[in-house]
Amino acid sequence: MHQHDHERLARVGMPEAVLCGTKSIEQVRAIAIELAEATTEPRLLTRLGDEQLAALPTSVTDRLDDDRLSKTAMLNGVQPARPGRVAVVAAGTSDASVAAEASRTLQFSGVRHDLIVDVGVAGLWRLEARLDEIRAADIVIAVAGMDAALVSVLGGLVAAPVVAVPTSVGYGVAAGGTTALNSALASCAQGVTVVNIDNGFGAACAAVRMLSLMGRAG
Amino acid sequence: MHQHDHERLARVGMPEAVLCGTKSIEQVRAIAIELAEATTEPRLLTRLGDEQLAALPTSVTDRLDDDRLSKTAMLNGVQPARPGRVAVVAAGTSDASVAAEASRTLQFSGVRHDLIVDVGVAGLWRLEARLDEIRAADIVIAVAGMDAALVSVLGGLVAAPVVAVPTSVGYGVAAGGTTALNSALASCAQGVTVVNIDNGFGAACAAVRMLSLMGRAG
Amino acid sequence: MHQHDHERLARVGMPEAVLCGTKSIEQVRAIAIELAEATTEPRLLTRLGDEQLAALPTSVTDRLDDDRLSKTAMLNGVQPARPGRVAVVAAGTSDASVAAEASRTLQFSGVRHDLIVDVGVAGLWRLEARLDEIRAADIVIAVAGMDAALVSVLGGLVAAPVVAVPTSVGYGVAAGGTTALNSALASCAQGVTVVNIDNGFGAACAAVRMLSLMGRAG
Amino acid sequence: MHQHDHERLARVGMPEAVLCGTKSIEQVRAIAIELAEATTEPRLLTRLGDEQLAALPTSVTDRLDDDRLSKTAMLNGVQPARPGRVAVVAAGTSDASVAAEASRTLQFSGVRHDLIVDVGVAGLWRLEARLDEIRAADIVIAVAGMDAALVSVLGGLVAAPVVAVPTSVGYGVAAGGTTALNSALASCAQGVTVVNIDNGFGAACAAVRMLSLMGRAG
Amino acid sequence: MHQHDHERLARVGMPEAVLCGTKSIEQVRAIAIELAEATTEPRLLTRLGDEQLAALPTSVTDRLDDDRLSKTAMLNGVQPARPGRVAVVAAGTSDASVAAEASRTLQFSGVRHDLIVDVGVAGLWRLEARLDEIRAADIVIAVAGMDAALVSVLGGLVAAPVVAVPTSVGYGVAAGGTTALNSALASCAQGVTVVNIDNGFGAACAAVRMLSLMGRAG
Amino acid sequence: MHQHDHERLARVGMPEAVLCGTKSIEQVRAIAIELAEATTEPRLLTRLGDEQLAALPTSVTDRLDDDRLSKTAMLNGVQPARPGRVAVVAAGTSDASVAAEASRTLQFSGVRHDLIVDVGVAGLWRLEARLDEIRAADIVIAVAGMDAALVSVLGGLVAAPVVAVPTSVGYGVAAGGTTALNSALASCAQGVTVVNIDNGFGAACAAVRMLSLMGRAG
Amino acid sequence: MHQHDHERLARVGMPEAVLCGTKSIEQVRAIAIELAEATTEPRLLTRLGDEQLAALPTSVTDRLDDDRLSKTAMLNGVQPARPGRVAVVAAGTSDASVAAEASRTLQFSGVRHDLIVDVGVAGLWRLEARLDEIRAADIVIAVAGMDAALVSVLGGLVAAPVVAVPTSVGYGVAAGGTTALNSALASCAQGVTVVNIDNGFGAACAAVRMLSLMGRAG
Amino acid sequence: MHQHDHERLARVGMPEAVLCGTKSIEQVRAIAIELAEATTEPRLLTRLGDEQLAALPTSVTDRLDDDRLSKTAMLNGVQPARPGRVAVVAAGTSDASVAAEASRTLQFSGVRHDLIVDVGVAGLWRLEARLDEIRAADIVIAVAGMDAALVSVLGGLVAAPVVAVPTSVGYGVAAGGTTALNSALASCAQGVTVVNIDNGFGAACAAVRMLSLMGRAG
Repeated sequence: MHQHDHERLARVGMPEAVLCGTKSIEQVRAIAIELAEATTEPRLLTRLGDEQLAALPTSVTDRLDDDRLSKTAMLNGVQPARPGRVAVVAAGTSDASVAAEASRTLQFSGVRHDLIVDVGVAGLWRLEARLDEIRAADIVIAVAGMDAALVSVLGGLVAAPVVAVPTSVGYGVAAGGTTALNSALASCAQGVTVVNIDNGFGAACAAVRMLSLMGRAG
Repeated sequence: MHQHDHERLARVGMPEAVLCGTKSIEQVRAIAIELAEATTEPRLLTRLGDEQLAALPTSVTDRLDDDRLSKTAMLNGVQPARPGRVAVVAAGTSDASVAAEASRTLQFSGVRHDLIVDVGVAGLWRLEARLDEIRAADIVIAVAGMDAALVSVLGGLVAAPVVAVPTSVGYGVAAGGTTALNSALASCAQGVTVVNIDNGFGAACAAVRMLSLMGRAG
Repeated sequence: MHQHDHERLARVGMPEAVLCGTKSIEQVRAIAIELAEATTEPRLLTRLGDEQLAALPTSVTDRLDDDRLSKTAMLNGVQPARPGRVAVVAAGTSDASVAAEASRTLQFSGVRHDLIVDVGVAGLWRLEARLDEIRAADIVIAVAGMDAALVSVLGGLVAAPVVAVPTSVGYGVAAGGTTALNSALASCAQGVTVVNIDNGFGAACAAVRMLSLMGRAG
Repeated sequence: MHQHDHERLARVGMPEAVLCGTKSIEQVRAIAIELAEATTEPRLLTRLGDEQLAALPTSVTDRLDDDRLSKTAMLNGVQPARPGRVAVVAAGTSDASVAAEASRTLQFSGVRHDLIVDVGVAGLWRLEARLDEIRAADIVIAVAGMDAALVSVLGGLVAAPVVAVPTSVGYGVAAGGTTALNSALASCAQGVTVVNIDNGFGAACAAVRMLSLMGRAG
Repeated sequence: MHQHDHERLARVGMPEAVLCGTKSIEQVRAIAIELAEATTEPRLLTRLGDEQLAALPTSVTDRLDDDRLSKTAMLNGVQPARPGRVAVVAAGTSDASVAAEASRTLQFSGVRHDLIVDVGVAGLWRLEARLDEIRAADIVIAVAGMDAALVSVLGGLVAAPVVAVPTSVGYGVAAGGTTALNSALASCAQGVTVVNIDNGFGAACAAVRMLSLMGRAG
Repeated sequence: MHQHDHERLARVGMPEAVLCGTKSIEQVRAIAIELAEATTEPRLLTRLGDEQLAALPTSVTDRLDDDRLSKTAMLNGVQPARPGRVAVVAAGTSDASVAAEASRTLQFSGVRHDLIVDVGVAGLWRLEARLDEIRAADIVIAVAGMDAALVSVLGGLVAAPVVAVPTSVGYGVAAGGTTALNSALASCAQGVTVVNIDNGFGAACAAVRMLSLMGRAG
Repeated sequence: MHQHDHERLARVGMPEAVLCGTKSIEQVRAIAIELAEATTEPRLLTRLGDEQLAALPTSVTDRLDDDRLSKTAMLNGVQPARPGRVAVVAAGTSDASVAAEASRTLQFSGVRHDLIVDVGVAGLWRLEARLDEIRAADIVIAVAGMDAALVSVLGGLVAAPVVAVPTSVGYGVAAGGTTALNSALASCAQGVTVVNIDNGFGAACAAVRMLSLMGRAG
Repeated sequence: MHQHDHERLARVGMPEAVLCGTKSIEQVRAIAIELAEATTEPRLLTRLGDEQLAALPTSVTDRLDDDRLSKTAMLNGVQPARPGRVAVVAAGTSDASVAAEASRTLQFSGVRHDLIVDVGVAGLWRLEARLDEIRAADIVIAVAGMDAALVSVLGGLVAAPVVAVPTSVGYGVAAGGTTALNSALASCAQGVTVVNIDNGFGAACAAVRMLSLMGRAG
């Protein structure tokens, strides 16, 4: 019997999510069944492996909206719409699954957003071509691996909050994402914040926290 | 002749700051004199060393508001007041100078804020005693070294955006701040974002970016 | 012919255990058969892989109490009961197998204990709800991955010895357990001690060493 | 005005100590004056630098028992005597200041103890000559740098709890203490626990926690 | 008596340089005197410390062209002019001394070059304003610390060889230059090459090697 | 729909390549089909996995020149011949696949080159036997793992530009290639430049950039 | 056609060995066939994988003495007997395959030796029981993982050359062998030398070099 | 009162040395006085700092042979002459102090030796010019920093035992000596052994152990 944190929505504005990637097939199955029985409120599962998904009973999967690119699944639909708009900007195709995790978490949280991929700085014109679109967003999530130079360039071009998601994409010194992480943390662009490597979910949660400021009187 | 980025305020909502810590005494002196001649707009100098400060001419220091705990100096006063309120929460006395850098940057940026120190989780009641005050803020900046456990505890208690500033305070595995940094990045509290070690300035800049959302329609 | 340390029980209060995880299937099989022939005293096997278990003859398995969550197996039953009570406290479901290794080692060593899971600090009320139970224990084993913030919070709340077991649970900067390990070592709570990553066995052995103090005159 | 945790003694069995090494001269001076005014109970200052000590007023130093090898100072005397006996065992002369920090913290906590130095395993007979003395202790604190081989040898020879304090002594791969730390954590001796590098204070606090088990019925 | 490699010019196209930073004052003095006696050909000293310089006799300093920003000194003038033009592009004022080491080594090697500073990507317009100048060069040396994003942006904008010099400028995860180094190595811009941290000398030597291709038939 | 950088050839002298190793089978298939439809110009695919290759339709593979040692594939043939000659020098058989990636990229780029393998410095005569051949090249690409001593020895023997490609070949401290990388970066031979671990493609691209200098007036 | 170093025996006293672990099945097969055709002198293959072995033709395997514990194979028998005797001492069963690689390389090199396993320092009496046997050897090879404390203890007990082979055995901070490596390098026992992690082959080669001193007049 | 290991000479063939670098001025002074009173046998002090030396009383310094390049001092002269000859080979002037520590330890141990400096592989002819001299030695100690390529080249050229001493000379990735250390450990030359960074003393002790083999019947 797992001890769920059902009051998290009231306390921090977001319901508890289930990080499946660090759990066994049996553990995920048990938690999912418990959740499905305990609540009809929306719940998000992240890093849900193919085998973990296959082990879920129809009592769960009937109420599940699953996506294999992002490895996310929504139980009981999505949360009510929130104000604001987020731009999820990814450097390359290789970063697509992490960007998709951010995108799906935003969808789950009722947040409108645009997904802008393949704008790495090795071809700077691609980013410039999308800049108006990006500047129209209230918040920018920048997803990049390798040198993560996209983070600094974006941070110098927009006034909105920029949340960087370093990815583990790459090889040699890039593999694992530490170079992208450190590059984002050491960014010469002021006021950029960073989440853990490949943590598209966390970046979206950070955006949700920030969006709560919208419409609030100063 | 340095190439200042005078349009940064218009582009990203904050003026360019001068990071003195990585520059020589001569370089800081030259830049400060140039700035003082070039503009009457507010400008911030960070990590201004004692010797760098001593080398500035009175033409600069006459217009300088300096603080030695945070090693910050404001040239030409502060920016206009902005809406919103930030809580700067620090785990211990040892984190005070980094918290002060965040506090001074907020002051420079026209942001109201509270400074709450000595609430490390080894004595959890101290944090709980200040929780209402913290929850009243629009944004929380969490400053902590060593294990940075304060970040996760705060992230689980408040719904506002939480920006973690790991500090280099400590010894052994803590020294340098990498443990605090990684602990904050791996936080079990969802939606926490992180800046570079000891980067109180950057956390405040991130808060300024976020505060631009206030009062905006969704 | 392996050279067993049969006198270890007399010398350090615990019999030699067999760490199977670093041995080949053939080596484990040979050692287990030797042990089963050499002694009828209780012996513990840890990190016993599924294939290693399958390769054991019935002459061994007939006398084996195996558990697949913890990957432990007890040959020839358990040791006599010892005084004292231990609380094994784990942050999340993902830490369950490491907590189970600690729990099974305590069971093998004749130590009463409680297993308290899913009390991570992102939902602090869950920990507070179990605090009386935890405070009733003579020793606390704290099992946590990622930021291991549970260790510091527990260390600040109880007077008993706290042994931290960092786990390799997580991804990005958390994966491998180094962040949890360093966070526990740098804990702001005084007097917490730490064992190797995922070493539930070692934490239980440390508890056994400590329990020998009970009932002893000062 | 600092926020002291005056209830820590009641909560975790030890009063809050002041870690001076990470604080400025001004901060230590202010905290010490506050403490001296606020309480006549014993308080411990650790890593008190020479310049920090010199800056303390006589109102503080008159009530201070200072020791320059360990960099510790006791305000208002020591705590009442506790049952049990601890052996502080150090590999070499170079580890003496860390061993002294453990020793002084034990003295402050009212714990009897023996200090046994220069018993590194490169001359194993030196350790064997002191083994009866070490085995007579209820708890062993093992202080060692470089390869920290003393920890494993001790852990295999005694049944008491062994708390390892890796030290930053050495050069090349040893300097900083990480090799000693990892060696202690990876010890082949079961049930050894470890504290942060150079953390003699923490090891003594751990011993104090353990000694609370003495005389308690099982 | 040191064993100089006087044939290096013939073998690899550049004379042996003296890296003073890793030598004692006495060693540098002895080598400089030997060099001054042995040859009237141009020789370069790098990382020549202030105290090392002060210890040189006038028999050496009379023939020495010294520069304190770059810590370089040329004995016996410079080498004959070579074809080609190099652009040394630096992200910020803090990188100036490393850029100056590259610039002085090029001057010593008889290579025309331009020094373009303060074009970090946080203010991308500054780089764009100088792009024609940079594109006119045969080789680009990119000097940048922190995230080294300048390297990737430059690599995507010019067709010339780009040699990156990561600098140790920065703090937190940037300090030491490893982040800049790894970021440059993991650059998304194809065909960028990298030298050691702060190695302005080496980048200039690489440029000299490359310039030997000019005018050569294919 | 991916956003290709079709103008890269005009901008930096080389067309965009597709790094398949960090992409899913579906992503590579989609990109390859798009490319085959969009252009009849030569395009290079690198790190193309066996399964990725198998998933390509005949509309792509009919126009594909694939090589399994280097994991490269050329779509629509190769680029026009360029002036100059490159020597690709590899320390051992184990480095052959990385050397082949460099060789194939040169072939794709229209560059004549020689491949010289098995000349590691443990048998220095092997290198000396090939030295005339190596010295005849305009550029040298040095491919080596483990200690990468070949890089320094080559750098001291030839005047041409030397681009080092550290490889991940080896075990223990060598595995992953970081030792080879750092050894090449710290080379005592002046003017050697380095690319990412196993980045044979990048070294060839660097050579292409450098070859553009040939025949150009100084 | 590979470039073998057939003169290595004359030059350094040992023939070139083939490290198969970093080569492909095809490469090993080609090299083995070439060797078998080129020479009837003894040759050693190390880290020969099961699949690599299976791919060898009978023309090779007919002349091959293979051992699967050590993954070594001898082509054309062994070298002539050499004077001297080596003790290969291993801490635990888990180190057996590395110890076997050393043992087999000694056998190939014509060196008499004893293999002494399961003498880890957690049960010091086991080592003491074998000490006379170890002290009778001319050279000691110490094989140990985890904390590698055996190395220091041995180094303090014998006067012969001690060559340490750290192994990658273990988990958590031990896994990979870096802790054992650094522990051996930082050993408090003077005059111990170290080879790469798991490099039983290299330790045996070092012993062969040393044995050449035997019988030589001083 | 320190616990000296006076029997070490009998046990391991070398007397205990005093590593002063990790001890305080007071500790070194006390140990030296004790030693001078306790024995008239030769004793070696290493890493003796200038201030430590200045604090020694004349009762010690009268019997002390001190050398400031190597920071070594011999009390009571040197040990009797031993058979054999060692070559200490250093890559550059910067490595001279480490080479001198090896040389002085050999002198103390009664071992004839040659010191050969400035033979780094960037100018390979310098090494070749001294090769006959080096090959005449019974043992080679190779001292090198940065890339430590000298180790591999030497290892491939001589049949004698080669002991590598990586040095902390260099900057960027070389500083601290880890690159040189790992490069030596990963050397492609078989049978090379390695000691800790800057450990010239240890390399000489290893040579002394090996020289005990000379003249011994096989």
